[in-house]
Amino acid sequence: MAGLPIAAFDELIWSAFREDLGVAGDITTNAIIPPASTCEAAIVAREAGRIAGAEIAARTFWLLDSSIRVEMQAPDGAAVTPGSVVLKISGPAGPVLTAERTALNFLGHLSGVATLTERYVRAIEGTKSTIVCTRKTTPGLRALEKHAVRMGGGQNHRFGLDQAVLIKDNHIAVAGGVRAAVGHMVKVEVEVDSLEQLKEALEEQIDTVLLDNMSPHTLCEAVQLVSGRVTTEASGGVRLDTVRAIAETGVDLISVGAITASAPKLDLGMDISKL
Amino acid sequence: MAGLPIAAFDELIWSAFREDLGVAGDITTNAIIPPASTCEAAIVAREAGRIAGAEIAARTFWLLDSSIRVEMQAPDGAAVTPGSVVLKISGPAGPVLTAERTALNFLGHLSGVATLTERYVRAIEGTKSTIVCTRKTTPGLRALEKHAVRMGGGQNHRFGLDQAVLIKDNHIAVAGGVRAAVGHMVKVEVEVDSLEQLKEALEEQIDTVLLDNMSPHTLCEAVQLVSGRVTTEASGGVRLDTVRAIAETGVDLISVGAITASAPKLDLGMDISKL
Amino acid sequence: MAGLPIAAFDELIWSAFREDLGVAGDITTNAIIPPASTCEAAIVAREAGRIAGAEIAARTFWLLDSSIRVEMQAPDGAAVTPGSVVLKISGPAGPVLTAERTALNFLGHLSGVATLTERYVRAIEGTKSTIVCTRKTTPGLRALEKHAVRMGGGQNHRFGLDQAVLIKDNHIAVAGGVRAAVGHMVKVEVEVDSLEQLKEALEEQIDTVLLDNMSPHTLCEAVQLVSGRVTTEASGGVRLDTVRAIAETGVDLISVGAITASAPKLDLGMDISKL
Amino acid sequence: MAGLPIAAFDELIWSAFREDLGVAGDITTNAIIPPASTCEAAIVAREAGRIAGAEIAARTFWLLDSSIRVEMQAPDGAAVTPGSVVLKISGPAGPVLTAERTALNFLGHLSGVATLTERYVRAIEGTKSTIVCTRKTTPGLRALEKHAVRMGGGQNHRFGLDQAVLIKDNHIAVAGGVRAAVGHMVKVEVEVDSLEQLKEALEEQIDTVLLDNMSPHTLCEAVQLVSGRVTTEASGGVRLDTVRAIAETGVDLISVGAITASAPKLDLGMDISKL
Amino acid sequence: MAGLPIAAFDELIWSAFREDLGVAGDITTNAIIPPASTCEAAIVAREAGRIAGAEIAARTFWLLDSSIRVEMQAPDGAAVTPGSVVLKISGPAGPVLTAERTALNFLGHLSGVATLTERYVRAIEGTKSTIVCTRKTTPGLRALEKHAVRMGGGQNHRFGLDQAVLIKDNHIAVAGGVRAAVGHMVKVEVEVDSLEQLKEALEEQIDTVLLDNMSPHTLCEAVQLVSGRVTTEASGGVRLDTVRAIAETGVDLISVGAITASAPKLDLGMDISKL
Amino acid sequence: MAGLPIAAFDELIWSAFREDLGVAGDITTNAIIPPASTCEAAIVAREAGRIAGAEIAARTFWLLDSSIRVEMQAPDGAAVTPGSVVLKISGPAGPVLTAERTALNFLGHLSGVATLTERYVRAIEGTKSTIVCTRKTTPGLRALEKHAVRMGGGQNHRFGLDQAVLIKDNHIAVAGGVRAAVGHMVKVEVEVDSLEQLKEALEEQIDTVLLDNMSPHTLCEAVQLVSGRVTTEASGGVRLDTVRAIAETGVDLISVGAITASAPKLDLGMDISKL
Repeated sequence: MAGLPIAAFDELIWSAFREDLGVAGDITTNAIIPPASTCEAAIVAREAGRIAGAEIAARTFWLLDSSIRVEMQAPDGAAVTPGSVVLKISGPAGPVLTAERTALNFLGHLSGVATLTERYVRAIEGTKSTIVCTRKTTPGLRALEKHAVRMGGGQNHRFGLDQAVLIKDNHIAVAGGVRAAVGHMVKVEVEVDSLEQLKEALEEQIDTVLLDNMSPHTLCEAVQLVSGRVTTEASGGVRLDTVRAIAETGVDLISVGAITASAPKLDLGMDISKL
Repeated sequence: MAGLPIAAFDELIWSAFREDLGVAGDITTNAIIPPASTCEAAIVAREAGRIAGAEIAARTFWLLDSSIRVEMQAPDGAAVTPGSVVLKISGPAGPVLTAERTALNFLGHLSGVATLTERYVRAIEGTKSTIVCTRKTTPGLRALEKHAVRMGGGQNHRFGLDQAVLIKDNHIAVAGGVRAAVGHMVKVEVEVDSLEQLKEALEEQIDTVLLDNMSPHTLCEAVQLVSGRVTTEASGGVRLDTVRAIAETGVDLISVGAITASAPKLDLGMDISKL
Repeated sequence: MAGLPIAAFDELIWSAFREDLGVAGDITTNAIIPPASTCEAAIVAREAGRIAGAEIAARTFWLLDSSIRVEMQAPDGAAVTPGSVVLKISGPAGPVLTAERTALNFLGHLSGVATLTERYVRAIEGTKSTIVCTRKTTPGLRALEKHAVRMGGGQNHRFGLDQAVLIKDNHIAVAGGVRAAVGHMVKVEVEVDSLEQLKEALEEQIDTVLLDNMSPHTLCEAVQLVSGRVTTEASGGVRLDTVRAIAETGVDLISVGAITASAPKLDLGMDISKL
Repeated sequence: MAGLPIAAFDELIWSAFREDLGVAGDITTNAIIPPASTCEAAIVAREAGRIAGAEIAARTFWLLDSSIRVEMQAPDGAAVTPGSVVLKISGPAGPVLTAERTALNFLGHLSGVATLTERYVRAIEGTKSTIVCTRKTTPGLRALEKHAVRMGGGQNHRFGLDQAVLIKDNHIAVAGGVRAAVGHMVKVEVEVDSLEQLKEALEEQIDTVLLDNMSPHTLCEAVQLVSGRVTTEASGGVRLDTVRAIAETGVDLISVGAITASAPKLDLGMDISKL
Repeated sequence: MAGLPIAAFDELIWSAFREDLGVAGDITTNAIIPPASTCEAAIVAREAGRIAGAEIAARTFWLLDSSIRVEMQAPDGAAVTPGSVVLKISGPAGPVLTAERTALNFLGHLSGVATLTERYVRAIEGTKSTIVCTRKTTPGLRALEKHAVRMGGGQNHRFGLDQAVLIKDNHIAVAGGVRAAVGHMVKVEVEVDSLEQLKEALEEQIDTVLLDNMSPHTLCEAVQLVSGRVTTEASGGVRLDTVRAIAETGVDLISVGAITASAPKLDLGMDISKL
Repeated sequence: MAGLPIAAFDELIWSAFREDLGVAGDITTNAIIPPASTCEAAIVAREAGRIAGAEIAARTFWLLDSSIRVEMQAPDGAAVTPGSVVLKISGPAGPVLTAERTALNFLGHLSGVATLTERYVRAIEGTKSTIVCTRKTTPGLRALEKHAVRMGGGQNHRFGLDQAVLIKDNHIAVAGGVRAAVGHMVKVEVEVDSLEQLKEALEEQIDTVLLDNMSPHTLCEAVQLVSGRVTTEASGGVRLDTVRAIAETGVDLISVGAITASAPKLDLGMDISKL
């Protein structure tokens, strides 16, 4: 998981298991699967998309029972079509069945994020803009969702409130202005809602300007006004049917909350056969 | 949070804060908001929907700074339209701004689940079927998403592998049959793919039958075959445009993975004013 | 550990080690055992009984020092007599001595639960009743104690408040009745104290009836009254000298709090020899 | 909780709640108890004994819902007879019912430890010996069980491997002798099985001698041999019917594993009435 | 604690208590202090310095026993001389004595960091340089030590590997160059050891240059070469007797590992009187 | 790590990684180091000293990526001179670079403690006194710092409030005397400030006397007064330039807070070369 060691996610995986297993465990498997059964299984895409979370899904099986073998067929970043095998799994049948849903929940959600990201990236192909994600992430999953965005071809905006300064309308409403004394290793972005605010912001020492909820026409003017002095980011009202017009205004970045907060899961399933 | 005490979610909220604050904290607020500033703020719906997570969002502000006052205007289960105020907040401006995104991430996601659930519930109004959710939940959020489903008018299927026996095709593939010895306080459901399998299943002592991926026509036949002896549940291929036809077959339950796994967030924002 | 992966207990084992080792660690072993010493050891039963916790005990040694080898001679569920070897252990002498008490505390307690359960099971041999445990478990050890009950030949009642509905006298005192709307995958049991209450309960849709504190004579009448329509469970006043009379009334289940809450530990010790 | 702040046990109480509530919570209370119900309840002794854990039980109710009021009628250390009220509780009926079993599990177990300890203490009344507990405690509950022993009139031996040096037969088997270099603030005890070993031990710089599995007759000789130079502790074969004879040998301490490892729970129940 | 909510440090404070209290707790206080004793106490500086950690120290007393009252006389950032009172404390004597050392360990260490930082800041007074800290912090205490540096008048360099890009000699040794594609909200710094490397680095898109282990003479040349195009930071060989000469070269920043990694504790003690 | 199993420190190491990696991870390494790069590295002393923490540092690399190989060249307790290699490391370059600072922070701090301890030990060579450490440790690091003291040739005083009784002036101020009833396995030390207090203390049953802030002259008198009846410990005003005079008074122990609380880090660095 570029960025963090895979073991950093073990606690998250265990918390997912605890949700599913409680104190009684998998009572179906315990009741019906003979302890010595072994199986072969495959996690298979049921629709086309972009994979993210294959490494986490593999780790999920391994954490539950380290004797399960997992072979990654479609690693993070791979494209799949219906029928593509993502993981090949073999080992004791009980633990494989017990871990199935937890592994699929990670893989389906993260691949959903990657797949939706890719649709946005494709929609602006040929322009100079870049799709970036926001802090609108699922509690507990930020590192994984940011990773999934990269797997879909997007870039990451700041990871948290601790990584960069972004002065929004609410900050200005309280503070009355954008002047901020920040560390020498920290970049500063300011949100503006109009060309007038943009002009004021350009008088401050900033690195990026967030052009919020502007029409493509206004964005064009804003980009001309900025004229390369700072990075430009468009935000608000970004949908698959509007993103290309926004990109064609020449903004550097387009931030899309939906790719992390509203991505439908990618449909994947596990096929199994007794050994 | 019917079901679990609110304090049971504090660790989850803190883990969301840790993702966002890291070691450096909210460097924007620290740089620009005077420590003594106070504010009034409102979390406002930007689109229509059904609220879930208002109590968690309120707790989020309170955990970050217990001097923040939060008044719940639209509690869990309430309907909102664009402009409806969900929470009224007042207190120190810095912590209010720092907690904003974390609170909105919970509220937007859970209200999204409730809102999508309600659309399914509405789609089958007048039929005898009930919409139920599945175990296709986001890792770490199962209790909250199950609650959001109830706020949207749906019902919960089993909460985890520990709560009931559900014998699926993969179990049968390994075990070779559906016979299971289970505890006296545990219900048993069996998945069937065809009317033939259904007939076999009805010969066992089961409580519910999962009719998987059947056409409305086959579902009708299945419901007649069962004739009230066990609970019937339809699953697979359930979408907003297909769900009514499924409900009209007379099945007792319709399980929908999408309501927890593919719900777009409800659009909500925070408006703020300095005091 | 049928039900949960063995690794799910690692945190519990570490918490036991933290209690025993604190910050200074095993100051006796550090003071007197040469670091390079190796040993062979055996955990041996000092009295007859039924083993539970051998797998946890083995894990305890391994977690402290993964170079310790443990061979299970009497696995969970095995009967032992004085002198029976449960575990054969070899490896570095220091860690073996440090882990001894922690491993024995798990093994002695859980084998005590299994042994007492077995005495109840034996006492009703030949009847149609089943011994089940309750939620009167030791805080933190529920999964292990439920497992130990199974090793002793008993069955598990519900694992927690989340697994089934059990409406007791205190619920009725507050709610004024037993009518409850519950999920389709959840069974319902109602506690009754008299035959009158039993008749009322049988008019509701319930799965099991808890016959509380009834004499064998009244139990007989209750069983006749129920006549197989629901599962019957006897509770209260169950001791080794009364349990057979209760079983002979024909109740399906007899729940015994004592098997988890009042089981004396099984006497086991560790014999060691230097290598 | 003399020794540790009460808040130090919150994590243990939450782990007990997690065992009982899982993800679905108390589905009985949720199904049947109206949210606005309030109640009065009393935790009442069903048999005579000595209370320990009343403070923990009170904290259990408060942690689940801080609006529950608990009044301690029989605090830790108090004697109770059948019908004695230990805690008076009032507040929202749902949480009171949900917390009942968890609170009782702590209170019943710890009062059981205190009650059994007191029986040993009474059995040796008038002698100069003191009853002490061992490290044979339940994993996770050592601090509480050590406290319960004190409430029953016993004393605590070392709390863990980190608090004092105790050189047992297994250490001697590996190390070949009892000579140990220990810190200046650490006491040293040595286990001996015979008078010969005792003589050797008395030649070392030790504080206490553990006379293991000796008959009262041999214990008498040992006490004479020691003649007050070190503290004497008898261990092994200590039962309620043997302990007085042991105490009359004049040993300073008698350690009893059973008081923590084999104490039957004290029978307590909760009576409730709707408000 | 500007930057993070005070409650974010509770787990750290508890881990310090666990180290000190173990399972047995404060056996001195338990043995000698009557439970009902109350006291007044003052934490007093024994030498001159700059305070950091007063808020954490106050929280430490409060966490152990919320009935302890603490009044902050010398808040974080205040200067103290021998005899200055930092905290005035009143409440139950036992918990005050138990928390004393833990509170002082935080306060003494963090005030030591602030005090040493201030000495560096004073040493370069009148120059245009700023003292910044590094990632040479004590494991577990980074947020607190970074805060203490600010209280001493220094500034914080990046908080972690996640906050900014700093390409060091070891990176270049492996990667063979300094070209890096980084996010738009991330600043980039490059370490150079010579003027030749500096010239190469200036050809890249960087924000800051780290001038490592250069003599004041070379630093002068480097500053001239840079000529304000990027921020300059001097590092290596910075001591209290060399720092002024370095500052006089005109570098923007001087990073000092010693202020977090080698700061002697500030001497503080607690005076107490019975009430 | 004599005393505790190495795995007991994994959580501490992870908490250090979390501080440094946050959610985004090592963005420098991710941006510039090709994923397949491998390297050889050496952790090298830049100044003379005594090593402690080599095992923890090795574990740090291994926890981040278990494919990193670490060879200990200078184990805990070894003396190093400038250029001495402590650890030889080889493996994937990215994780080696990511773990570098965390490993060095442990190693530099603990070796600093060992090195300063050794300077005190050397300063009193030839006397009969022993250097011991105090509870003035860094929150979270007590076990490691106590270990480092031993590596430097010092001894450990009590590890925490739970291990021995030490009655200080503040206890006496509240309790009005030194009489304490303590367990039979617990030693008792009393602090005295004058010869008069010493005489009183010697009338109690104590094991050690803490002679606080006495001049060498008074210490001599105190040692004569005690005349071997209890252990003597000098404390207060102990510096490298005063410690020998204190030792020459004949006290048994000299406790030095500075060795854990004010030790400058030992200067160590990592040299790396691409493979």
